[in-house]
Amino acid sequence: MNPDLSAAVDRCPVLSRIGLIGRSKLVPHARIVEYERGRTLYSHEMPADRCFVILTGWVKLYRVRHSGDEAVIRMQRQGETLGVDEGMRNGRYRHHASAVSPSKVLVFPAQIMRETLEADPEFGKALLHHLFDVNDQLYDQIEALKSRKAIERLANFLQTHARTRKGKTFVTLPYDKTTLAAYLGMQPESLSRALAQLSEYGVRVTRDRMEITDINALLALTHYGKDGVGVT
Amino acid sequence: MNPDLSAAVDRCPVLSRIGLIGRSKLVPHARIVEYERGRTLYSHEMPADRCFVILTGWVKLYRVRHSGDEAVIRMQRQGETLGVDEGMRNGRYRHHASAVSPSKVLVFPAQIMRETLEADPEFGKALLHHLFDVNDQLYDQIEALKSRKAIERLANFLQTHARTRKGKTFVTLPYDKTTLAAYLGMQPESLSRALAQLSEYGVRVTRDRMEITDINALLALTHYGKDGVGVT
Repeated sequence: MNPDLSAAVDRCPVLSRIGLIGRSKLVPHARIVEYERGRTLYSHEMPADRCFVILTGWVKLYRVRHSGDEAVIRMQRQGETLGVDEGMRNGRYRHHASAVSPSKVLVFPAQIMRETLEADPEFGKALLHHLFDVNDQLYDQIEALKSRKAIERLANFLQTHARTRKGKTFVTLPYDKTTLAAYLGMQPESLSRALAQLSEYGVRVTRDRMEITDINALLALTHYGKDGVGVT
Repeated sequence: MNPDLSAAVDRCPVLSRIGLIGRSKLVPHARIVEYERGRTLYSHEMPADRCFVILTGWVKLYRVRHSGDEAVIRMQRQGETLGVDEGMRNGRYRHHASAVSPSKVLVFPAQIMRETLEADPEFGKALLHHLFDVNDQLYDQIEALKSRKAIERLANFLQTHARTRKGKTFVTLPYDKTTLAAYLGMQPESLSRALAQLSEYGVRVTRDRMEITDINALLALTHYGKDGVGVT
């Protein structure tokens, strides 16, 4: 087997749970595809003939309203899937998906995914647990949208994406601020205001990088530790 | 088999898809339980030892913040499940669930659900398709929360719950307006404003009943037919 493919499968939460039967059926049909920033993986209403697993990069899942506004539903990243719900049902894609950063993606024919489900119950269980995890995130996102203020949703986003290197904790924004505002369910000007307010909580913003100098202040702002909920 | 139980299983979208093996394993362990309005089915963080299917009535899924505010995540009704994600993972409930109207519920021990999954691949597939459907609704709810105004979300809710009898189309509110406002992600005063605005679109409100005199006006307001998205 292509060693790149094999390593990619091992790193993916859903694929790594599949048994040997499922793996040997799926992997020969996988391809690795690279998408430049802005490229479309699939469009709303297209027949869902392929399923995707993100290896690197970010892909946004969105719909376009008549006004031309985008509703950004999710931002998917490494290890996450796209088009599986629709592909497994042999339906049509329910959203648009396009790369918001250069992305490397594992692509499977949806038909092979369906055949694997029939051939290997372990694959069904792996998918089931994957969907439980996705549901957790969707429920948390709904809670955040309903009950949290803009600044709290932004603070949650920063906590979720923070990385620590050389003693500094920071978030490098993987995509532009307009997309981030749409994803967090706020206007771009509300995002700017929320970013400015966060300076009181020790967040320093320079272009696409935000440094968190006081993680406890940020945690206190969102009660993250106590409510146990984050926008993901 | 208890004929009430058997009929209940037939009416439930997820249970009716299960094969005979799964059914014969699950059904003997099912109980029908009635909950008065306001009664709790389970609480956040409790061990998820039971899974539920609603036969009649409405159950709200919510979290409570430190401030005491409730974040109403979903309103579940006939045929919908509760506690399955957590029960199948042998985890803890991720939300509170309580009846907002008198409700009749089918209750299964979570352990039997897990054993059935091991014994019958058909049960796994039925659960998988159930989760795909739940995901569709969650994605649509997220889109509505991010991109639709309060009045549009309310109009969508009315379309989804409208019933026609004797030539009249109406929605009988199955729970109080405070709960509805929380579910739609708005303050009670925003709900009152949105209800008042809807009179321009042919909606007449009398206590807990809303009559829709012009469904096309309501459809035009939400672009429901074109965008194909509703809050459910």
